[in-house]
Amino acid sequence: MLDMVKYLILVLFALTFTNDLKGQEEPKNEDAFFLRSIYDKALTEGRCYNWLTHLTTKIGGRLAGSPQAAAAVEYTRQMLDTLGLDSVWLQPCIVPHWVRGDKEQVKIVNSKSMGSLNLNALALGNSVGTPDDGITADVIEVKSLDEVEQLGREEIEGKIVFYNRPMDPKQIRTFNAYGGAVDQRVFGASKAAQFGAVAVLVRSMTTRLDDIPHTGVLVYDEEIKKIPAIAISTNDAESLSGLLKKESVRVFMKTNCQKLADAPSFNVIGEIRGSEFPEEIILIGGHLDSWDVGSGAHDDGAGCVHAMDVLQLLKRLDYQPKRTIRCVLFMNEENGLAGGLEYAKVSNDKHEFHLAAIESDAGGFTPRGFSCDGQNAIFTEKFKKVIEWLPLLEAYNLSLSKGGSGADISPLKSQNGLLFGLRPDSQRYFDYHHSRIDTIDAVNKRELELGVAAITSLVYLIDKYGL
Amino acid sequence: MLDMVKYLILVLFALTFTNDLKGQEEPKNEDAFFLRSIYDKALTEGRCYNWLTHLTTKIGGRLAGSPQAAAAVEYTRQMLDTLGLDSVWLQPCIVPHWVRGDKEQVKIVNSKSMGSLNLNALALGNSVGTPDDGITADVIEVKSLDEVEQLGREEIEGKIVFYNRPMDPKQIRTFNAYGGAVDQRVFGASKAAQFGAVAVLVRSMTTRLDDIPHTGVLVYDEEIKKIPAIAISTNDAESLSGLLKKESVRVFMKTNCQKLADAPSFNVIGEIRGSEFPEEIILIGGHLDSWDVGSGAHDDGAGCVHAMDVLQLLKRLDYQPKRTIRCVLFMNEENGLAGGLEYAKVSNDKHEFHLAAIESDAGGFTPRGFSCDGQNAIFTEKFKKVIEWLPLLEAYNLSLSKGGSGADISPLKSQNGLLFGLRPDSQRYFDYHHSRIDTIDAVNKRELELGVAAITSLVYLIDKYGL
Repeated sequence: MLDMVKYLILVLFALTFTNDLKGQEEPKNEDAFFLRSIYDKALTEGRCYNWLTHLTTKIGGRLAGSPQAAAAVEYTRQMLDTLGLDSVWLQPCIVPHWVRGDKEQVKIVNSKSMGSLNLNALALGNSVGTPDDGITADVIEVKSLDEVEQLGREEIEGKIVFYNRPMDPKQIRTFNAYGGAVDQRVFGASKAAQFGAVAVLVRSMTTRLDDIPHTGVLVYDEEIKKIPAIAISTNDAESLSGLLKKESVRVFMKTNCQKLADAPSFNVIGEIRGSEFPEEIILIGGHLDSWDVGSGAHDDGAGCVHAMDVLQLLKRLDYQPKRTIRCVLFMNEENGLAGGLEYAKVSNDKHEFHLAAIESDAGGFTPRGFSCDGQNAIFTEKFKKVIEWLPLLEAYNLSLSKGGSGADISPLKSQNGLLFGLRPDSQRYFDYHHSRIDTIDAVNKRELELGVAAITSLVYLIDKYGL
Repeated sequence: MLDMVKYLILVLFALTFTNDLKGQEEPKNEDAFFLRSIYDKALTEGRCYNWLTHLTTKIGGRLAGSPQAAAAVEYTRQMLDTLGLDSVWLQPCIVPHWVRGDKEQVKIVNSKSMGSLNLNALALGNSVGTPDDGITADVIEVKSLDEVEQLGREEIEGKIVFYNRPMDPKQIRTFNAYGGAVDQRVFGASKAAQFGAVAVLVRSMTTRLDDIPHTGVLVYDEEIKKIPAIAISTNDAESLSGLLKKESVRVFMKTNCQKLADAPSFNVIGEIRGSEFPEEIILIGGHLDSWDVGSGAHDDGAGCVHAMDVLQLLKRLDYQPKRTIRCVLFMNEENGLAGGLEYAKVSNDKHEFHLAAIESDAGGFTPRGFSCDGQNAIFTEKFKKVIEWLPLLEAYNLSLSKGGSGADISPLKSQNGLLFGLRPDSQRYFDYHHSRIDTIDAVNKRELELGVAAITSLVYLIDKYGL
């Protein structure tokens, strides 16, 4: 039988691989050749993974205002300085400074069936602290902000409101599921406080069932009393919900997180000046801050090293752009957007024009394409031009769609250029997002490098053909 | 500033998410509705991840002939038996039985600069053992089988040949890179032995630089003396290569792996019989055996639970197929293909007709589409029909291309149906492939479930419209 086996193995290697080798086609024109050279360099001489390893393992979580955020500013400035760019600078901005303080406590204190039980908890960003001796109250579960309104003060007052509407697993793109659930985390505290709640618990924003709590920003309505808000893991949310079906549940919560005075910080910027149209800026960016837990590997260390590596690749390819290519690492996307707002303000004051801005803030996974956005008045015509590049991009499995871009660059929309968001595969993003497991171990080097190649390809086409 | 921030956060949620919600479009016709219901069920009521967890954590690595392989046969048979299929059966086959024996040793014994140094080593599947006291010899590095021929007996005789041509990182699809390097592992031992080598070392087949050795099948030329062959990790391959540039290197190798007598085993089969054209079979399959290290999560536990879950979903959706839908879990793909060959032989003897066969053997990652293959005489016409379904599949980011399908189903090509291979994202596959880290931790539940949905969608279209 061995001869047969050997024959088959030979045939199968031919079957499985030869066809595929044909699949990676020879480039057919100048643009295809250049994209091929971009991908070749990105996959062999990229620096993004090494930078991200440093950012995540030597610096770590870098919330705006923290020493780690300052270290990240200085580290990335130094790295950009090694690339031979035309200029590298820091743009000052003032950021909110929120600190978590001691480890949060959330504990079921009265359960007949389960006794005293600690829940896996993480205070939401911007949350106020509890009094020193914590808060103990009955829990009421709701599935939406509307339900809080419907229940009204009679049911809500004096209680801890527990928001427990899961992210919808049926959404293919997980960002849709996030968008459909995150109002509970962002606005749930003030809505509950409006009806007399003393605190809120929020089911973590992930489709996975596990023990890892996920933080994220909450926004208080300044007219309403601020109450503490803590996320619990999805497994604990399921347990708590199960328990509430059987008996009344009292919970003890304690956190001493607090907001300190605003602090000075920076956006980090580097650029290659355009040779023909230097006044037309093509921006590529991510945000340098992250949450304090984990080390912000996918959110958004990946986006930062993507943006930096685009410049590195262009230099390495000896590409002299016609337009100005600018890398911006924004500060404070997570809990204030101070960097993005300041950048746009300064840019508008200087009457700059961003022909295009591309943000990578959806993780370092295999890129699937770009979303594209712009003012109604100019969008249709400009997007037509972009769509012409689709065959070049499709050769690398990249698609183009209309849709939101990124938080930091969105204030630039008024400059009448196009905004793009890199769209990586989204399946794993919310497993890690805003949690202690968003670390370098969750990042695959090749997937990260393919993101750089995708963005660089788009930058090249915009630079060459304009919009 | 807070009002501005709040305003922006609201705008951004609208920007980023509302557009995307539109992105998941309402289905427009009966087929689109059914595909939507397939995806909904797969992402909420799939059993694939639980099955794979059992297969990998309770059973583990399951090389043909091993007790674990027998356990996997019985476990999957029992699980198929829970699905209410029309029939579930075991198909006997005789498999080779190779055992690794004690932990391999590969050690540099004479280095002036590094002293005695253990390398991370793993014998190749089918390798013969060394003598009891091992083999100690000088090492010569080569980059190809051709180089061995060029060097000839003078340079090769009495030495250990070290194959060290890396997988090409510039290949976007990693299977292409594998196809371009794996001849060293499959045929390197006999080629080296032909010129008098006493053993071979092979650089592990992965693009990653790490300490994890990867095994895989080697095929001996029966006319040539069999010499032992061991894979070393990519980091160790780099070190050894560096050392060889400076000095001559002697290596001690020891392994007592051996081939035992052939053993009885089984393919596991379950089917739903077609209501109109039961004689037209649509096969979905993966292979149940895996290498002995790790637990064969991506290779190919994922493919097995994909195939099983397709039947589970069709039953759950109350879908009565017109054609026979058959799930086949093949035995012994890794080191002999006995299951695939036996299945085709029995099928041909019974004059069966496989209208289509779909194999999932490229991991449980986010699906990117299907490759399609068939005999020249029928391919073009049949593939035209498949291409008509592309808009339905593209809604779920699935593409179609011509290309190899899967090892186990390839002998069915002669029945003049179409063969398909599921093509998941390939970037991470060779990080885990044939190594101790191919475990359930490397599998994302949603990515796995999307594979089931993709295959079920294709099965539905083939069943409804024929080929």
